[in-house]
Amino acid sequence: MHRSKTDSPALKVIFLGGVGEIGKNMTALEYAGDIIIIDGGSSFPNVDMPGIDLVIPDTSYLLANKDRVRGIVLTHGHEDHIGALPYVLKDLNVPVYGTKITLTLVDAKLREQKIENTKLNIIKPGSTVQFGCFKVEFVNVSHSIAGSCALSITTPIGIVFHTGDFKVDFTPIDGNVINLQRIAEIGNHGVLLLLCESTNIERKGSSMSESTVGASFNNIFADNPERRIIIATFASNIHRLQQIIDLAVKYKRKVAFCGRSMINIAAAAAKIGELRYSDDVVVDIDKIKNIDDKSLVIISTGSQGEPMSALTRMASDEMSKVRLGYNDTVIISASPIPGNERMVYNVINNLYRHGCKVIYESLAEVHVSGHAYQEELKLMHSLLKPKFFMPVHGEHRHQKKHAELAMRMGVPSSNIIVPDIGNQVLVTRRTMSLSDNVSAGAVLVDGLGVGDVGSTVLRDRKHLAEEGLFVIVIGLDKEEGKITSVDVISRGFVYAEDAEELLEEAKKLVIRLGSKTDLKEMEDPAIFKNIVRREMKAFLYKETRRSPMILPIVTEG
Amino acid sequence: MHRSKTDSPALKVIFLGGVGEIGKNMTALEYAGDIIIIDGGSSFPNVDMPGIDLVIPDTSYLLANKDRVRGIVLTHGHEDHIGALPYVLKDLNVPVYGTKITLTLVDAKLREQKIENTKLNIIKPGSTVQFGCFKVEFVNVSHSIAGSCALSITTPIGIVFHTGDFKVDFTPIDGNVINLQRIAEIGNHGVLLLLCESTNIERKGSSMSESTVGASFNNIFADNPERRIIIATFASNIHRLQQIIDLAVKYKRKVAFCGRSMINIAAAAAKIGELRYSDDVVVDIDKIKNIDDKSLVIISTGSQGEPMSALTRMASDEMSKVRLGYNDTVIISASPIPGNERMVYNVINNLYRHGCKVIYESLAEVHVSGHAYQEELKLMHSLLKPKFFMPVHGEHRHQKKHAELAMRMGVPSSNIIVPDIGNQVLVTRRTMSLSDNVSAGAVLVDGLGVGDVGSTVLRDRKHLAEEGLFVIVIGLDKEEGKITSVDVISRGFVYAEDAEELLEEAKKLVIRLGSKTDLKEMEDPAIFKNIVRREMKAFLYKETRRSPMILPIVTEG
Repeated sequence: MHRSKTDSPALKVIFLGGVGEIGKNMTALEYAGDIIIIDGGSSFPNVDMPGIDLVIPDTSYLLANKDRVRGIVLTHGHEDHIGALPYVLKDLNVPVYGTKITLTLVDAKLREQKIENTKLNIIKPGSTVQFGCFKVEFVNVSHSIAGSCALSITTPIGIVFHTGDFKVDFTPIDGNVINLQRIAEIGNHGVLLLLCESTNIERKGSSMSESTVGASFNNIFADNPERRIIIATFASNIHRLQQIIDLAVKYKRKVAFCGRSMINIAAAAAKIGELRYSDDVVVDIDKIKNIDDKSLVIISTGSQGEPMSALTRMASDEMSKVRLGYNDTVIISASPIPGNERMVYNVINNLYRHGCKVIYESLAEVHVSGHAYQEELKLMHSLLKPKFFMPVHGEHRHQKKHAELAMRMGVPSSNIIVPDIGNQVLVTRRTMSLSDNVSAGAVLVDGLGVGDVGSTVLRDRKHLAEEGLFVIVIGLDKEEGKITSVDVISRGFVYAEDAEELLEEAKKLVIRLGSKTDLKEMEDPAIFKNIVRREMKAFLYKETRRSPMILPIVTEG
Repeated sequence: MHRSKTDSPALKVIFLGGVGEIGKNMTALEYAGDIIIIDGGSSFPNVDMPGIDLVIPDTSYLLANKDRVRGIVLTHGHEDHIGALPYVLKDLNVPVYGTKITLTLVDAKLREQKIENTKLNIIKPGSTVQFGCFKVEFVNVSHSIAGSCALSITTPIGIVFHTGDFKVDFTPIDGNVINLQRIAEIGNHGVLLLLCESTNIERKGSSMSESTVGASFNNIFADNPERRIIIATFASNIHRLQQIIDLAVKYKRKVAFCGRSMINIAAAAAKIGELRYSDDVVVDIDKIKNIDDKSLVIISTGSQGEPMSALTRMASDEMSKVRLGYNDTVIISASPIPGNERMVYNVINNLYRHGCKVIYESLAEVHVSGHAYQEELKLMHSLLKPKFFMPVHGEHRHQKKHAELAMRMGVPSSNIIVPDIGNQVLVTRRTMSLSDNVSAGAVLVDGLGVGDVGSTVLRDRKHLAEEGLFVIVIGLDKEEGKITSVDVISRGFVYAEDAEELLEEAKKLVIRLGSKTDLKEMEDPAIFKNIVRREMKAFLYKETRRSPMILPIVTEG
């Protein structure tokens, strides 16, 4: 960097989420005095986080640089791109930009959490917004939610292109084909840096068009003229809802939406004109009793087997509005997200137990992915021909493979960085390098608490979950130096009635330990507590090969 | 059944596991005074069972009919077919029959749990054993473990054929091709009832031969001449181990086994001649430091990303014997079992972070399934042409689809029962019908306890895991009717230092509740405990939207 003195300052690309993992996407671009934020997503807790409702990015870097944040630009309205906004905007009230459907979903979220005063600015694909030194152009792309955009960001040192989530769908439902012409034009201008999503890097060929799902559904409607049809899918996949509604009209069926998010999102999308149907097609789920099986389609939540979702409750007989039976054909129009397989299969097994006919992905083409496969990624690379490349939106393995693809497409390996969470990459016209990490990671939301459940609390929860609890209440007569009472309470350890003898032995052990300790002279009851904890742990492990959490409580009479 | 009086008694087929689920396979056949047991498997706990080590079948029906149990016949040595034997044999000491490798694995298990006096009888495929009125013939089949057999069981009313787990491999590693001639012959004699496994019913076509994995490995060895190769696979897949060892010899590499079960099973298999290698090929894992990368293959456990397995510990830098780096090519030669995906992908991500080259199923043919695909199942059906059919070894969805396949193959639907756990099916020469269920289900093993963790304990564990614990210790002066002290201990709820104010408010609440209660006249402290529990629950939920387990403890001074 011998010319660094005369160079303009470096552009910082800061990864607060969505790299090294799938979910909670959030990236910041910083140049001199300006910062813009791309997306603010949440992710679901993993199995190591019992009781957690939601995981959001750590935004302390942004809060520390609050004055310079010019706004948030959103690529689309999926939870992993907008789910953290209610928490982010609480402390960082900056304007938010996105397409109409995206902001409709954000608005609902903000209202629910009573966040007011946020400026939501609707943009149309193709339009441009200036944020300090950044000029952001929203470029129409295809994805499994309407209103998805890539971002072409003109910075003082060149163009940064962020694909957001995308696929190449030449026959999309709304007719808005991904704007490849514009992407090619931007490529011709010269792209300094490409940030491209990596979700489906392991899949060869090209993803199928959303319209192929409609064709499969059409066959199913035609093959099941006398049966009730129930379709579970993501509420946010408006285009899929539209296809189902159109088929319902074609086959003279009514549509009932089922599940809270399905009802809310369908209503919101209809209100802004993204979902089109005449009112006499839709019937309230509470009023389906009067409708023949052959005249009804139910569109339901629960395609991931989520415990409280409509389909899961139907399958386990917990939903009085919809009772399943032999005349039901149930379509699960989704793939299980990794980690959800067990839940989804449990629901499918229960559907079969009710006698339903079940159609799901392993058996039929009732779902397509919203993310680009290898050939589509190659198309994006070849149109944009970036100087620098960073694979984003994927686990580390996906990003690594995407880097290999970029190399095969001609990007030298020295011009590629595989970013991980917290990374801060410095980009100049000629160089790209990792700088110090910023504070980043997972902030856990549990009830009203944001970030108050940390590793100690989670460790305790796991310990309690796996081994249970053993409370020992010891009454102590300090003056006499004698134990006056011992009580034992266990939870999640052994079923107490099966273990009376064990509990008696445990009490005797405490008495024995008391008689061996000089309780009168003991300055701090913590000393005796530690003795009890240690000896009880050894005793219980010997007897049961289990190590419950032991809580000795000493009360002085 | 107008001829029932003159008919012979019915054969009972009793399902204690392995139907309606994958895992813990166990079926009993009963005719007049004789019972035989087919397999005695365990399964892994699911996420709803924190802390549980193992799940085994409920065998109370067998214990109640102990005197009539003639023996246990084993189809093969996988955990889901033999894992429950140490627990079953403790109370039911009957002879066990299986092939040499199967019983070698059983023997190791019994020794570990100090079960002695069990008679293990080695049989050869093709041989026959008489158990009371049952004559059991062991028929050689292919599967992902050596020594796998189907069972052709001649009963007084006809032949019952149980496939065990199988695939059709025309080019198996040990040359023992599945005995289709014998199966055809049995089919020609006439099969009354077929019990056939259903694991891969959703897969079209035929499974690939185990030898194709060897061909893929050969290419990888040839393409990585200078790199260290690490292969994770199931220890019990002896044929795969043999292929790797043979390739090591071909490419002049040493083999090191890594992981406890890998070392133990390889040694046991070598001892009985199932695994063949000369001693100078194998090197102790503790001594690999002196061997060049290009001269070494490590065969490791951990293909499912199991937390304590060798590969997982390597990937997270917890294994000093094997330090990973840029010169390692790691092959994961297995598919993730549903539910394990997240763990497997975490390991893969960590391998990439070490700079390893990683080869796994999505990318290359480094694994084949040991279970029959649709065309192989059809072959079995068409050779055996059974009168009655019951699909087994699968989740309910698999069994339902297998029933559909059987119908397409010509079995009338009235001759098919899709059994669920606990079902008892009565079979005569002419009829098949469900009788009353027997006691069956999941017995949980936790440490030394078998069956002492039930639904209450699990519910408490889940509650503790998701919401944590809130212990309130209340000192009470009964005579004065006054509370003398209140202490609060929380675990897994909130980080205490962040919540001092909340804990103080909670204490004040207890004092307030005490002053409103006539503690002097209170006959049972449980009354006050209930008040505290109810009010504290409401208070904590209002403040935090969480509901920890609340344990009020009243001590009288």
